[in-house]
Amino acid sequence: MTGAHGLKFNIAARDGAARTGELETARGVVRTPAFMPVGTAATVKAVSPDDVAATGADIILGNTYHLMLRPTAERIANLGGVQKFMNWKGPMLTDSGGFQVMSLSALRKLSEKGVTFQSHIDGSKHELSPERSMEIQALLGSDIVMAFDECTPFPATEDEAADSMRLSMRWAQRSKDAFQGAPGRGLFGIVQGGVYENFRRESAEALASIGFDGYAIGGLAVGEGQAEMFRVLDFTPAMLPEDKPRYLMGVGKPDDIVGAVQRGVDMFDCVLPTRSGRTGQAFTRRGTVNMRNARHMDDPRSLDEECPCTCCQNYSRAYLHHLFRAKELFGLTLLTTHNLTYYQALMSGIRAAIPEGKLDDFAAGFTEEQASGDIEAL
Amino acid sequence: MTGAHGLKFNIAARDGAARTGELETARGVVRTPAFMPVGTAATVKAVSPDDVAATGADIILGNTYHLMLRPTAERIANLGGVQKFMNWKGPMLTDSGGFQVMSLSALRKLSEKGVTFQSHIDGSKHELSPERSMEIQALLGSDIVMAFDECTPFPATEDEAADSMRLSMRWAQRSKDAFQGAPGRGLFGIVQGGVYENFRRESAEALASIGFDGYAIGGLAVGEGQAEMFRVLDFTPAMLPEDKPRYLMGVGKPDDIVGAVQRGVDMFDCVLPTRSGRTGQAFTRRGTVNMRNARHMDDPRSLDEECPCTCCQNYSRAYLHHLFRAKELFGLTLLTTHNLTYYQALMSGIRAAIPEGKLDDFAAGFTEEQASGDIEAL
Repeated sequence: MTGAHGLKFNIAARDGAARTGELETARGVVRTPAFMPVGTAATVKAVSPDDVAATGADIILGNTYHLMLRPTAERIANLGGVQKFMNWKGPMLTDSGGFQVMSLSALRKLSEKGVTFQSHIDGSKHELSPERSMEIQALLGSDIVMAFDECTPFPATEDEAADSMRLSMRWAQRSKDAFQGAPGRGLFGIVQGGVYENFRRESAEALASIGFDGYAIGGLAVGEGQAEMFRVLDFTPAMLPEDKPRYLMGVGKPDDIVGAVQRGVDMFDCVLPTRSGRTGQAFTRRGTVNMRNARHMDDPRSLDEECPCTCCQNYSRAYLHHLFRAKELFGLTLLTTHNLTYYQALMSGIRAAIPEGKLDDFAAGFTEEQASGDIEAL
Repeated sequence: MTGAHGLKFNIAARDGAARTGELETARGVVRTPAFMPVGTAATVKAVSPDDVAATGADIILGNTYHLMLRPTAERIANLGGVQKFMNWKGPMLTDSGGFQVMSLSALRKLSEKGVTFQSHIDGSKHELSPERSMEIQALLGSDIVMAFDECTPFPATEDEAADSMRLSMRWAQRSKDAFQGAPGRGLFGIVQGGVYENFRRESAEALASIGFDGYAIGGLAVGEGQAEMFRVLDFTPAMLPEDKPRYLMGVGKPDDIVGAVQRGVDMFDCVLPTRSGRTGQAFTRRGTVNMRNARHMDDPRSLDEECPCTCCQNYSRAYLHHLFRAKELFGLTLLTTHNLTYYQALMSGIRAAIPEGKLDDFAAGFTEEQASGDIEAL
C-alpha cells in the first residue's frame, strides 16, 4: 500500500506514545499531528480557501452525506472534483457518509447491504453502502477515503457494540474491495467497538488483516465524556499498526486533542472552531471567551496580540463585539479565521514539542494557561 | 475652503457635462467619477476591507444613524475613529443621519431644532440636529461630512417641497456653522427641492452662498423613476459650483450612474451591489443574473472570465449556484466582491472615456451590451 499506490507516512520523531511526521498525498503533504477544518458542503463555512490555507491547515475534510445530496457527487465529478469546485489547493479527506446519515436523515433503514434514507433537504430517497460510498468518494476526488461504517451509538450494551462493530468490519472489507487505489490516494479503516477494550481489539485486528493506509478511531466524542474517551485512547491506538496514521474522528476541544496526541493519535477533525466562530466564541491560549459579552465593548486590544491571524493583527475586541452584536457577517469570518488559526497554532506547538521530547511539558503548560481562564492578561 | 482646510478637487478632463478628476482627502485620493460602497455599521457587509480595496474602491460610506446608535459615536471616537475601528485605510464619507432617521426610526418628531426619535434597535430616545450631526461625524472621524438635511419625501406637493427644502437650507447654514474644518476634511451641502426646477435653483443658490467643499443632490432615487430623475439631473448639476464635486446620493443602478455622469455628477453611493450580492443577484456587462437559477447548476464557466475579481478568477457559476442553494456564507462574500468589482470597473471605464471625449460612445456600448441580456455569451 505504501508503494506506487496509497499514501506514504513518515514518522520523524516520537515522544512517549505521540508521533510527529508527514503524510504524503497526491495533492500535498500533511504535517502530523494534524487538525483538519471541516468543509461540509464544499466550503469551510464563512471563510475562503485562502483564509483556511493562511491559518496553516494542510488538509480539510468534506462530508459525503451533504455533497451526495447537494450538489451531488456526479455533478462535482463533472466539474472536476471537489477541490477544483471549491478552489481548495491541498488534499481533502472525505468521511463515508455513515455518521451523518444516521444523525441527519429521515426514515433510515439499515440492513446488511447498507442504509436507505430520505434526504433532510428535499425528502428524496437515497442509499449508501460500502460500494456506493467508495463510488461517491471517488467521484468527489477525495485524497483520503474513509471506509463505510456504522458509528456505534453511545451508550450501547456489549451486545449492541459487538454487533455494530462486526457489521462495520464486514463493511470495511467491502469498502476495501470496492476502493480504487491510486498514487497519493488512500483508504482508512475505522475501529469501532464502543468503550469495550476486547471489541476494540477485535476491530483493530480485523482492520489490520484487511490492510488500510490509515486507521481511524470511530465512535468516540459521542457523549461519553473526556475521561472515558481518554480511557479508550489509553489502549486503542496501541492496537493499531505502528507505521500508519491514526485519526480520531470528530475530536475535539483543544484539551481533547492534546490528550489524544499524548495517547498516540495523529489526525483530528472537528466543527468546533468554525461553529464556535459563528456564535461568537473565541478560542484563546487562556481558554474560550464569548465576544458578545459586554465587557469587550470598549476594549481596544486585539483578542491575542501574539496570534498572527488577520483578526488579531487588525481588529480590536471592541470591533468583534460590535460585529456580533450587530449580526454582521464579517464577524463570523474574522472569528472563524481566528479560531482556525488558534487550532493550527496548537498543532504547530505540538509538532514542535515532540522531537524535543517535551510534549508532556507542552501539555502541562497548555493546561495551566488554559486553566488561568483570563484573557485580560493576554 | 480649498486651502489649508477642506478638500482639493482637481478636474483633469471634461466631456460634455461630464468631468473626471481627483478629490484629495487627508486619507487619500478619490478618483472621480467615483462609486462609494456602503459600509453601514462599520463594515461593508460580507466582505473584508481588503476585499473592498481590491475591487478598486477609493472611498466608502458610513451611516451616521446606525453608528450613533451602535456602537455609538463616542465609543468609536475613543477607539480611534471609524476607519481605525473597521481597518479601512482610505477615506470615508458619512451621511448626516437625516435620511435613515426618517426611514428607520420610530416615534419621530421633527421641529425647527432637529429630530427626536426612538432607536429601531432598543427603543432608546435620541436626537439629531445640524449641530449634533456635525458632532457625531467629527467623533466618527469622517473625511467627508454631510450637512444635516431633511430628505424631501416623494411625491411632495410644491408647498411641501419648498417648505422641506427651506428647512434643509436653514439646517445647511447651521451645519456649516457647527462644522470643524481640517486639512483634507470637508463638508458637503445637499440640494433639495424635489422635482421642481425653481426650488432646486433656490436650494443650489442658498448652498453656494454658504459655501461647501462639495454639493450633493438629495431627494432623488426615492421612487420617481429614472426618466424623472434624469429630467431633474438635466438642470440641477449645472446650478452647482463648477469647481466642486457633485454627489448624487443613494444612486444607483449601473445605467443610472452612466446617465448621471453624462449629466455632470462626480460621486455615487448605493447598497445595490452589496445587497444584491447577498441575495444571489450578479451584475455583469450583460445585465443582471440570478445565481439561484437552476440553469447555472452544471455550468463550469466563471461568471465573467474578463472580470479580475477573485470570484470570477477562481470559481464557477455552478459553485456560486451551489453556495446560494446551500445558503453558505461564502457565497455572499464572493458575489458581493464580484458586484463591487463590476461597479468599480464601470467607474474605471467611465473615467477612461471622458479624457478621450468618448463618454457617449462608452454609454452607447454599455447600453447595448446590457440590453443584450445574455450572460451565456460572456
